[in-house]
Amino acid sequence: MSEKPKKVLLLGATGSIGRQTLDILKQHPETFTLVGISAGHQEQALEQIVEDFPSVEWVGLSSLSSSQAAQKQTPSVHWIGGEDQMTQLVQQADYDLLVNAVVGFRGLKPTLEAIKRNKPIALANKESLVCGGELVKQALETSTSTIAPIDSEHSAIWQCLQGNKKKDVNRLIITASGGSLRDLPREALDTSTPQQALKHPSWSMGQRITIDSATMVNKGFEVIEAHYLFDLPYEQIATVLHPQSIVHSLVEYKDHACIAQLGSADMRLPIQYALYGPDRPYFEEKNSLDMTKAMTLTFLEMDEKRYPILKTAYEVGEKKGNAGCIFNAADEKAVELFLKGRISFLAIERLILKALESIPWIENPSYDDLEATDIQTRRFVEEMSHQLEENT
Amino acid sequence: MSEKPKKVLLLGATGSIGRQTLDILKQHPETFTLVGISAGHQEQALEQIVEDFPSVEWVGLSSLSSSQAAQKQTPSVHWIGGEDQMTQLVQQADYDLLVNAVVGFRGLKPTLEAIKRNKPIALANKESLVCGGELVKQALETSTSTIAPIDSEHSAIWQCLQGNKKKDVNRLIITASGGSLRDLPREALDTSTPQQALKHPSWSMGQRITIDSATMVNKGFEVIEAHYLFDLPYEQIATVLHPQSIVHSLVEYKDHACIAQLGSADMRLPIQYALYGPDRPYFEEKNSLDMTKAMTLTFLEMDEKRYPILKTAYEVGEKKGNAGCIFNAADEKAVELFLKGRISFLAIERLILKALESIPWIENPSYDDLEATDIQTRRFVEEMSHQLEENT
Repeated sequence: MSEKPKKVLLLGATGSIGRQTLDILKQHPETFTLVGISAGHQEQALEQIVEDFPSVEWVGLSSLSSSQAAQKQTPSVHWIGGEDQMTQLVQQADYDLLVNAVVGFRGLKPTLEAIKRNKPIALANKESLVCGGELVKQALETSTSTIAPIDSEHSAIWQCLQGNKKKDVNRLIITASGGSLRDLPREALDTSTPQQALKHPSWSMGQRITIDSATMVNKGFEVIEAHYLFDLPYEQIATVLHPQSIVHSLVEYKDHACIAQLGSADMRLPIQYALYGPDRPYFEEKNSLDMTKAMTLTFLEMDEKRYPILKTAYEVGEKKGNAGCIFNAADEKAVELFLKGRISFLAIERLILKALESIPWIENPSYDDLEATDIQTRRFVEEMSHQLEENT
Repeated sequence: MSEKPKKVLLLGATGSIGRQTLDILKQHPETFTLVGISAGHQEQALEQIVEDFPSVEWVGLSSLSSSQAAQKQTPSVHWIGGEDQMTQLVQQADYDLLVNAVVGFRGLKPTLEAIKRNKPIALANKESLVCGGELVKQALETSTSTIAPIDSEHSAIWQCLQGNKKKDVNRLIITASGGSLRDLPREALDTSTPQQALKHPSWSMGQRITIDSATMVNKGFEVIEAHYLFDLPYEQIATVLHPQSIVHSLVEYKDHACIAQLGSADMRLPIQYALYGPDRPYFEEKNSLDMTKAMTLTFLEMDEKRYPILKTAYEVGEKKGNAGCIFNAADEKAVELFLKGRISFLAIERLILKALESIPWIENPSYDDLEATDIQTRRFVEEMSHQLEENT
């Protein structure tokens, strides 16, 4: 290749997606140069990355004092510290592609800033679309920026849309494993422990997303993400249970053909496709899928009674405004409380519904409105959880 | 649409694929105009099509006298009769697209003639590639003609390749239902009757292809077709057993992703895609696939001992020359004898192997060489079958 390597800025470099992104970048130095990284408090891990990738010129971290100390020690690198470090990085650094692998609401602002700078984005941060979908959509209208999904389901859909026309799409069909508690009846869910709920049957992921898979909140988020990523109405987005997590999602076309993407549970595939697509270079994978061997793939109709929160997600998506932000914040706080053993499994759902009922709806929220909604919702869920405790 | 409708010439108009092609053309008069048709001896059916499609200007049929009679009765249409009618049609008619739905070796010559005239071809005639793959390949080198596959497996692969690059393909994986006798052990095959062998579990097709599915000869043909259609070496073409015939085939890429096409067993889908692709307009289908409902898809490793002829097909493909022509002619004749109750099921395989051993191999056959090979092989199989009879 004679083209110059693309300069990559990676936010959330020390998390699960971040580390796997580094693994991909390391394999293709002729195509990508890592120029900037950021993480919250994983300072040692950040320093290790700076050592491993001498091309890194920009580093962001939460602690201002740590960044100042690092600046003295390694003056060849721009160290940015403080709460606003990610936004500053996105605004100031010299890069060709942003990989946003931040977890949580704070991933939204960097996405919006990168769109303002017309930078292409590989997006793993769900909250950018679940909380800020409308803001992102508006920002994209006056930008040349594009968003490539990193989520395995959305990457699958994106791959299945290649070479096809949007007008010919009948439905996107997002697959769901059913999560860790899928074999329990709904009546047995409320006594499920965090330990049980954290055992995902097919993916090894962060704690929150593993619980979100068990509640089906994660699939609800993905429906909202799909709406914004592929610009399709909610009635054209469906879900199906697929316990093996081999078919990562499908697109059903108007001629009744379905195109599906299949693969093993390795996030490096969607990460690489977000960076490289439509190219598909080889990378080392030990347990890659071999469809010439014996295999059983089962699909089950989504059980709306078992997973009522999925219907809520569709309603939230249709409602727009700050509803997605309330949904996300309530879930994040409730999952945190569940993991601490403070509330039961089904209380996650109840707290989300309570928050959606109680937090004021704003039709056209600004970024600041969303930030306020996020804080207000967390506080509300915290308070409500005490009431739940008192009632039991 | 403001573009002029494409003029279609349809060979094999009264067969299974031909009739379904007419069904598709009827639904899209703004896009396609049927200008020519041909069939062997189905004269009444041809006349019916001329009545249904007033746009038809050219009709070919085997009987010269019938064509002369029809010319008098319907002088507004060009009637062409005689053995060479298809070739004459392809050479003389004014059309934009040839749909070659002819069954058998005689479909090869029209394909070659259409390539000479730089006409795009939607190809259902397997023999064009199984017998004449090298001639077709050579002809395409100096032509602007393109070939769109109509076979469901090759259509699936073609769909799964859209938006991707050939350099990134690891393997094509062709699915096989296993055919009508798949639940019998190999030892029990030899006493299988034509009646048993004609019951295909998922597709309703012609007699020969149904028997070819049971012997796995059809899958062997498809491997050879795939080699020529997608210009990939045989080691990059694999097969897998998939009893439900829902996944019509897959492409495995170098990044370990598989893209699959799924659909119900309705040939109109691949026919329409061959005409329209990459567009996918809606058409009425009663039993269309719904992947949001309960479904089990199983895959089994191809059993080479159960289906030894598949290995033969790979060898034939690698050998090139007139080997594919011998393979096809021996199979066609042997299947005919099996259906007449003259030979046993496994004798089909034995006669194919015998023919491949005995008929002289020609490295670079001309079309005339292939025609001679075709006749010689059929005669040889007929004679050999008498020996088999005498031995039993």
